[in-house]
Amino acid sequence: MAILLSVTGFDPSRWWQALHDAAPERLIVLDPADAGSEPITHAVVWKQPPGLLATLPQLEAVFSLGAGVDHILADRQLPDVPIVRIVADDLKERMSEYVVWRVLDHLRRGRSYRQQQTQKIWHERVQPAAREITVGIMGLGVLGLDAAEKLRVMGFRVAGWGRSEKTVAGVATFAGEQGLGPFLAETDILVVLLPLTADTRGVIGAGLLSRLKRDTPLGGPVLINAGRGALQDEAAILAALDEGRLMEASLDVFTVEPLPPQSRLWSHPKVFVTPHAAALSDPDALAPLIMRQIAAQERGEPLGNVVDRSAGY
Amino acid sequence: MAILLSVTGFDPSRWWQALHDAAPERLIVLDPADAGSEPITHAVVWKQPPGLLATLPQLEAVFSLGAGVDHILADRQLPDVPIVRIVADDLKERMSEYVVWRVLDHLRRGRSYRQQQTQKIWHERVQPAAREITVGIMGLGVLGLDAAEKLRVMGFRVAGWGRSEKTVAGVATFAGEQGLGPFLAETDILVVLLPLTADTRGVIGAGLLSRLKRDTPLGGPVLINAGRGALQDEAAILAALDEGRLMEASLDVFTVEPLPPQSRLWSHPKVFVTPHAAALSDPDALAPLIMRQIAAQERGEPLGNVVDRSAGY
Ligand SMILES: NC(=O)c1ccc[n+]([C@@H]2O[C@H](COP(=O)([O-])OP(=O)(O)OC[C@H]3O[C@@H](n4cnc5c(N)ncnc54)[C@H](OP(=O)(O)O)[C@@H]3O)[C@@H](O)[C@H]2O)c1
Ligand SMILES: NC(=O)c1ccc[n+]([C@@H]2O[C@H](COP(=O)([O-])OP(=O)(O)OC[C@H]3O[C@@H](n4cnc5c(N)ncnc54)[C@H](OP(=O)(O)O)[C@@H]3O)[C@@H](O)[C@H]2O)c1
Repeated sequence: MAILLSVTGFDPSRWWQALHDAAPERLIVLDPADAGSEPITHAVVWKQPPGLLATLPQLEAVFSLGAGVDHILADRQLPDVPIVRIVADDLKERMSEYVVWRVLDHLRRGRSYRQQQTQKIWHERVQPAAREITVGIMGLGVLGLDAAEKLRVMGFRVAGWGRSEKTVAGVATFAGEQGLGPFLAETDILVVLLPLTADTRGVIGAGLLSRLKRDTPLGGPVLINAGRGALQDEAAILAALDEGRLMEASLDVFTVEPLPPQSRLWSHPKVFVTPHAAALSDPDALAPLIMRQIAAQERGEPLGNVVDRSAGY
Repeated sequence: MAILLSVTGFDPSRWWQALHDAAPERLIVLDPADAGSEPITHAVVWKQPPGLLATLPQLEAVFSLGAGVDHILADRQLPDVPIVRIVADDLKERMSEYVVWRVLDHLRRGRSYRQQQTQKIWHERVQPAAREITVGIMGLGVLGLDAAEKLRVMGFRVAGWGRSEKTVAGVATFAGEQGLGPFLAETDILVVLLPLTADTRGVIGAGLLSRLKRDTPLGGPVLINAGRGALQDEAAILAALDEGRLMEASLDVFTVEPLPPQSRLWSHPKVFVTPHAAALSDPDALAPLIMRQIAAQERGEPLGNVVDRSAGY
């Protein structure tokens, strides 16, 4: 029995080591050929090469290295085994750090103060208090709910939008297509924490951007996307910024990653770019969770955090 | 009966209007001469001209426009009447916004990511999680306690230092000179929310800076001062930054304000400057509190938030 670790876009060695440290008795291979005669029963992946998993007849489950599984489901020859995503305090806390950091930087006029500093200008900027601002969170899942709670403690009003109706203390909740209009009508700062699915692809497009509130206590709406790049239409975001319909944006994810040098997002004065770093998947924190799930499955216990393949998340 | 509004350094008109709106029947003057034959019983001040209050024989109380009273007590001819400071949710919440914003910007490597963006560099920075960082707060008063609670919710470990011993749930507390060493030994990010008194003047000097932890999970210690400028020795801060003993600093207050153009703090790449804007005193939110206290005193009720003149805060 062997575990396949297959990642694209970064060096797998830290993950290999962390998985190994979590269960040193396991055979963990980077290439199916290295398993020899051992059957590969589990795959731990980030953007596995399409078709690879279909070549593993004994596969019992696939584990994502992150909270999202769009990179796995993109494989059209995906075998019919459970797909497990990461749900972990470490990931949730790091994402909330990012969200609160970006929301506060926009509220507290970070961009203006940094500009003023380069010119040695001593000038206090008027700004609303947190309690005058509604942060609207698209995606009220594990990450969205944690961010909502922390924003509430910081004094913000919070609204949230999801696929299904739900009740969350202290949060004005909205669901589905018919809930989107009322949700956007309350939102001053829009935070996107949606998964990428067939339904959510391109949702942050010209249509949605044109429905954002024009008059907010900050002087205009703000967009923060830490979900997935393919949720957003980058040309539409740039147009909205240029036309003043969007005041500022913090983007952690992009349709093409790494963000190509020719993208105007890099140099746009109203955009803050981070390199898909909002919530780093820390191998040391997360590998033990994966290994524990594999052991539990072998004991016949049910897997946790299995995604709904028809919903896509 | 008249109320004197005396401020130095900014236009008093917004405060005049807000005080007037809170109690339109009151006579509020900007100059004692304008009170005519009405005795001035209350003064509402920010850095009043020294000696001015001593000329008001009927004075019953002096109100600060902010949480601090050092600007009032600096007057050597201050009459022996109660000095009242501002304690308000609005002020507290804004200060905590500032503190959490700055702490997160240092934790999340804001400076590095902004630099990388100007060079179109896509590179994820390693960073500790909030729970690996201890924020040490000097000054566990109204503002320090609120910031401590919010930092705790964000996942940080929190330590606090004050003049007297106290117990705060979830916060490692230290007091006095003998508590300072152990407090600094735990601190990765130092947040200063002390009042300026004879005892605290210059406390952030070469001595204290040399006692900061060298090895922190962030790579070095960070200083955030939103108390008062005279708490800090700016030459010592610059030296510590240049020698790498201090990693970064966010300073909202300065020994001379506005910060003079020749100060190296303006252009130091590791310093973030804001113009004494951490917690703006919003006249509309705060003027009613002052007017209510004046009315209460007239009814013979005790004043709240009176400072201890011998302690200086
Ligand atoms: N940038 C980064 O570093 C980073 C790191 C980790 C994760 N992420 C991204 O964050 C995403 C969210 O993670 P999570 O753990 O919070 O996921 P989750 O628990 O599955 O939550 C997803 C949320 O999105 C909502 N949703 C899904 N499809 C929708 C639709 N068509 N319309 C409206 N709402 C819809 C869901 O609604 P219901 O509640 O009704 O199901 C749910 O509230 C991940 O999928 C990943 O893409 C990014
Ligand atoms: N930058 C801005 O925009 C801004 C805005 C508002 C206020 N401020 C500043 O923030 C300061 C704090 O406000 P606050 O309302 O929190 O004041 P506070 O409630 O009076 O608290 C002061 C704290 O400092 C401690 N302290 C005083 N002297 C000390 C000493 N010698 N050694 C150790 N600890 C000492 C006190 O200890 P005990 O608990 O033992 O008494 C208390 O914990 C104000 O005085 C003002 O200077 C700045």
